[in-house]
Amino acid sequence: MTVSDPTFAIDPRHAQVARELYATARDLPLICPHGHVDPRLLADDEPFPDPARLLIVPDHYVTRMLLSQGIPPDRLGVPRRDGGPVETDGRVIWRLLAENWHLFRGTPSRLWLERTFETVFGVETRLRPETADEVYDAIAARLEEPGFRPRALFERFGIEVLATTESPTDDLGQHAKLAADGWGGPGGRVISTFRPDNVVDLDREDWSENIARLGELAGEDTLTYAGYLNALRQRRDAFIEAGTTCSDHGHPTARTEVLSESEAAAIYERGLRGEATPADAETFRGHMLLEFARMSLDDGLVMQIHPGAVRDHNRRLYAAHGKDVGGDIPQATGYVHALRPLLDTYGMDPRLRVVVYTLDEYTFSRELAPLAGGYPALFLGAPWWFLDTPDAMRRFREAVTDSAGFYNTAGFVDDTRAFCSIPVRHDISRRSDAAYLASLVVQDRLPLDEAAETLADLSYHLPKRIFRLDGKAA
Amino acid sequence: MTVSDPTFAIDPRHAQVARELYATARDLPLICPHGHVDPRLLADDEPFPDPARLLIVPDHYVTRMLLSQGIPPDRLGVPRRDGGPVETDGRVIWRLLAENWHLFRGTPSRLWLERTFETVFGVETRLRPETADEVYDAIAARLEEPGFRPRALFERFGIEVLATTESPTDDLGQHAKLAADGWGGPGGRVISTFRPDNVVDLDREDWSENIARLGELAGEDTLTYAGYLNALRQRRDAFIEAGTTCSDHGHPTARTEVLSESEAAAIYERGLRGEATPADAETFRGHMLLEFARMSLDDGLVMQIHPGAVRDHNRRLYAAHGKDVGGDIPQATGYVHALRPLLDTYGMDPRLRVVVYTLDEYTFSRELAPLAGGYPALFLGAPWWFLDTPDAMRRFREAVTDSAGFYNTAGFVDDTRAFCSIPVRHDISRRSDAAYLASLVVQDRLPLDEAAETLADLSYHLPKRIFRLDGKAA
Amino acid sequence: MTVSDPTFAIDPRHAQVARELYATARDLPLICPHGHVDPRLLADDEPFPDPARLLIVPDHYVTRMLLSQGIPPDRLGVPRRDGGPVETDGRVIWRLLAENWHLFRGTPSRLWLERTFETVFGVETRLRPETADEVYDAIAARLEEPGFRPRALFERFGIEVLATTESPTDDLGQHAKLAADGWGGPGGRVISTFRPDNVVDLDREDWSENIARLGELAGEDTLTYAGYLNALRQRRDAFIEAGTTCSDHGHPTARTEVLSESEAAAIYERGLRGEATPADAETFRGHMLLEFARMSLDDGLVMQIHPGAVRDHNRRLYAAHGKDVGGDIPQATGYVHALRPLLDTYGMDPRLRVVVYTLDEYTFSRELAPLAGGYPALFLGAPWWFLDTPDAMRRFREAVTDSAGFYNTAGFVDDTRAFCSIPVRHDISRRSDAAYLASLVVQDRLPLDEAAETLADLSYHLPKRIFRLDGKAA
Repeated sequence: MTVSDPTFAIDPRHAQVARELYATARDLPLICPHGHVDPRLLADDEPFPDPARLLIVPDHYVTRMLLSQGIPPDRLGVPRRDGGPVETDGRVIWRLLAENWHLFRGTPSRLWLERTFETVFGVETRLRPETADEVYDAIAARLEEPGFRPRALFERFGIEVLATTESPTDDLGQHAKLAADGWGGPGGRVISTFRPDNVVDLDREDWSENIARLGELAGEDTLTYAGYLNALRQRRDAFIEAGTTCSDHGHPTARTEVLSESEAAAIYERGLRGEATPADAETFRGHMLLEFARMSLDDGLVMQIHPGAVRDHNRRLYAAHGKDVGGDIPQATGYVHALRPLLDTYGMDPRLRVVVYTLDEYTFSRELAPLAGGYPALFLGAPWWFLDTPDAMRRFREAVTDSAGFYNTAGFVDDTRAFCSIPVRHDISRRSDAAYLASLVVQDRLPLDEAAETLADLSYHLPKRIFRLDGKAA
Repeated sequence: MTVSDPTFAIDPRHAQVARELYATARDLPLICPHGHVDPRLLADDEPFPDPARLLIVPDHYVTRMLLSQGIPPDRLGVPRRDGGPVETDGRVIWRLLAENWHLFRGTPSRLWLERTFETVFGVETRLRPETADEVYDAIAARLEEPGFRPRALFERFGIEVLATTESPTDDLGQHAKLAADGWGGPGGRVISTFRPDNVVDLDREDWSENIARLGELAGEDTLTYAGYLNALRQRRDAFIEAGTTCSDHGHPTARTEVLSESEAAAIYERGLRGEATPADAETFRGHMLLEFARMSLDDGLVMQIHPGAVRDHNRRLYAAHGKDVGGDIPQATGYVHALRPLLDTYGMDPRLRVVVYTLDEYTFSRELAPLAGGYPALFLGAPWWFLDTPDAMRRFREAVTDSAGFYNTAGFVDDTRAFCSIPVRHDISRRSDAAYLASLVVQDRLPLDEAAETLADLSYHLPKRIFRLDGKAA
Repeated sequence: MTVSDPTFAIDPRHAQVARELYATARDLPLICPHGHVDPRLLADDEPFPDPARLLIVPDHYVTRMLLSQGIPPDRLGVPRRDGGPVETDGRVIWRLLAENWHLFRGTPSRLWLERTFETVFGVETRLRPETADEVYDAIAARLEEPGFRPRALFERFGIEVLATTESPTDDLGQHAKLAADGWGGPGGRVISTFRPDNVVDLDREDWSENIARLGELAGEDTLTYAGYLNALRQRRDAFIEAGTTCSDHGHPTARTEVLSESEAAAIYERGLRGEATPADAETFRGHMLLEFARMSLDDGLVMQIHPGAVRDHNRRLYAAHGKDVGGDIPQATGYVHALRPLLDTYGMDPRLRVVVYTLDEYTFSRELAPLAGGYPALFLGAPWWFLDTPDAMRRFREAVTDSAGFYNTAGFVDDTRAFCSIPVRHDISRRSDAAYLASLVVQDRLPLDEAAETLADLSYHLPKRIFRLDGKAA
């Protein structure tokens, strides 16, 4: 058997303890409280397309690395906004990846893909330019088998619950279909996350359309601020009826803001008139985080905040191929002052749960760990995007455990749109946390039994409890 | 013997060299040039109260972690500002800690407490919910023995000198009592540190009261800026007569400022009239650092600067329980531009010593090490609060040694108010530095004899010399 | 043989794999695409002066460390701007270093110097106060041998190509001399780098003089903005004719700016009239980076950007001894927003190559790696100044490989003015990268054969290709 068994440890005894710990958590069910899998995938349960369309074309980690070496997304089959021609032959795209496979040495993409080939598809041939077709054909053959349809994989992966992400302007039709099949609904296997960014960002081009759609779905007049808030509350209720336990908020910064109702309404009205400034938009986003916290105290949704991405930094890439194709870049993100209005108001209320993520590891020990270790409402999300790697996960634990311990962190969240990588990502997180815990064990800083209990908590029990997937109300 | 012997090393040979190095420094006397032990403790030499009141109630590292998981400080016996009821039964508080002991896995608090149980109190039972009473009773029994009174412990701990911290508005009465007992005074075992923040911060509510008290103690008219400076000089002299060798300055930022006397006087007068703005207060703090540097050139006090804490970030905690109970949070702290006025003026004068600390490790290699490696007057203080941990100490050495070496760092400073943790904190620092030095030895980057000499310097000789506890004038 | 063989690894198997990898790259030729060696050294090929004047006096890493402990540069023979007396006896200077050798424990200077003594001069006596004269004499004796003249060392070091750095106001006379001897010119062993800072920084005291000199050399009227641009283009052509393949830009920040020609001309004219503000100067620098990128698309020069140094932070040191003597300090440096105008305009053009360096490691994973992994034109330079150390090199690879891989980094650049340290610096870089790659191998994350190929690329092939030293046009 040639399947690799990385421990993310170098010293043999450290590796041995890491392996022992990992073995105790390896088979725990997967809790996927936040991610971007298309619910249609599981609602329709159709066979996946070819290996390239499954594993390369939609994976912006992969396409951006190839772009960075001068291979344009067109040659990788990434659709153009203008509908212009792009590569459509999966095998051609796959060969291009194989020819450039050296670019991925040492990267998480290589780790995920190799382990996906091995552990999901049972293909152990090492990818090289010369083996491109062999690997492609082997995966393609598997994809035709019934056991490789989405629902079968879902069960084989051991996923207990998976949350997709939808806007309040989504009618949750896919989730209704899943519920009808016994796959969705409260306590079900596939649920949604309430993500209102597209009706909160006044500076989006499509904001007016979005709030119109919001009003329509909720039967509220969103041309008033009061109607807007009512509509949001109604949509939250609809999501909750479909099983949702969390909201999610992707903002450029972590800024929160206390506005009076009339101040908020005035900004909203400037937005309606098309007169909102960028500063208005930023203030309104910060205010709405307070507003959503208030709603959470009523309805129990766990808030997630994902701040710090400069969306579409690569403007030419955006112009050609649109959003979410690898053109976003992190920026320095402050939490200490930005979150203070929210924490002043609700941070001491243990009924509220706010899970904060970061793209900026240079806040770990200075801001995030002290805050999470000082406010009952605050938890730290798993290392996110650009930091979702074994090395960054280790740095996260090394930097935050001192001030936040393990129990102010929320456990692993895969946050992926790549369905087939889910078990691999959880596996790597469990291996990585096992390695960190093992390092404490071999340094005589934590007994093995407590390390094992902690690993099970991080892998399974904590995310289940913190994201309210245990059926318990606030 | 089950006492743990952590080396903060994973590889067996690395651990072995670390252990050998540590053994050479383990028994050196303790130099405690900065901390927050109450001098009354040693002046009165009364028995300690129960284990909870000794080890939990006053330790904000512990109470904030419990608060972060929803356990309010009231239940932990932390006094309320309104005098309202809080838990008073030490055993109940102790059990609450034991029930939540898992929260401290991997944290320095766990390391300090466990090693305090073991090495100070000789209690080797592992704390668990089921052993809470056993551990409590064993420690309580020890606390009744005469060998566990403060002065006896002081001697057993091997403390050579301990500096408490007082404001110039303190009459140093406790220190006079210690001196009368042969424990204080110049060259004595217990001395004070001159910390003038409460008469420098124009934006403190009690500033007017404080400068009135300052004037009274010094016999100066602090309603003029000149009288204020005279009063400060006189109080410094009084501190120096009581053995003080250092001042300490806890500012929100590291900003320093060159003002003319008339500019400074004008701000001071706005302060007197209650008209000082926050910007005035910040400017005045920055100016006073220059002023105190000037005084240091005259009287030889070593300056310590502790910048970067957002005091009372947790406003509800402050409202209920006041200051220094775990509600402070670090913030991003710049040194390169902030310290430049001070360094331009006095940074090349080797008679001046300025020891700078940080809560922001993301300045180690970029700012602090290059500055300390480039100015004779500047030294780096040991990793402070939130960074006073084995892992952060390692990161400190890894990041600053390249540009600052070892001899521009000031050696270990425990900075604690937890008297019983002092030997443990020094021990962990020595073990941590031993581990770092051992890593250089096993990598063939430093011979063992030089590593041992360096460890003795960091543990004992450097802090003694740099903080002028060796009896040598500037 | 007592020559040390550091692996920058602690675990024995890790060290063994690192050693095996290193052995495969050890003897590859040295590519030195950027540095500050004086071309006169190789043009004249005179014997070096005494060991102190060769290894201490000009090395500001060494003199600043000694200064930081109160030893003024005068005592180390660093020339004064006022021509005042400084120490001239090399042996006295050398003894001062030896007496203070403990200050360098754990620093890269110690590593470089010790290995230079050993591997360049064959002196294996450990430097100590007592051995100062012995080491001095041994090196001095070597310096008299013909095999220790610059060109002989160049060949013994295995340098394939070395780029010095000159301003467009330099007539390249030394390079002409080298070319006449068969050592320079296109494809030659010694070439120049085009570094226009002294004609771009409007706020330099000597800017007017410099542009006058520029105009004179180019035969253009630099009293107009159009003439200035023409003069720069002509000097670039002259540099290219002398073999230059790169430009270099040392700016306080990474700011880039899109100005219209008339806006740029207006600022230039304010500069001519002596009316340019600091903001003008900063805007103009940012604009000129765009202008130089445009020129690079025409003439193929690879751009290097070295941002983030606060030059002459130590003003008293500057006043006494001038520039480049250890008074510069890094500052926090932003790239995400600063580089966006440049990247928006040219970042997707693979004909352009921009190699960005940093003094601020706290941008590695947040900014630099995501940018380099997202734009074809951008590459990351090797860890620079204050970060040119084994530990920082490891942190660089650990932090950037996740998002940028290895192939968006530009390979090692020694950037030194210390000619005799060149082989040592390359050796340490190769050992350090070998250690990082070996860590991936022992963790089962990269096969040994791919690790070896990557190491050869980082050590030799990548810098040769990226800096266009392979004779291939854009």
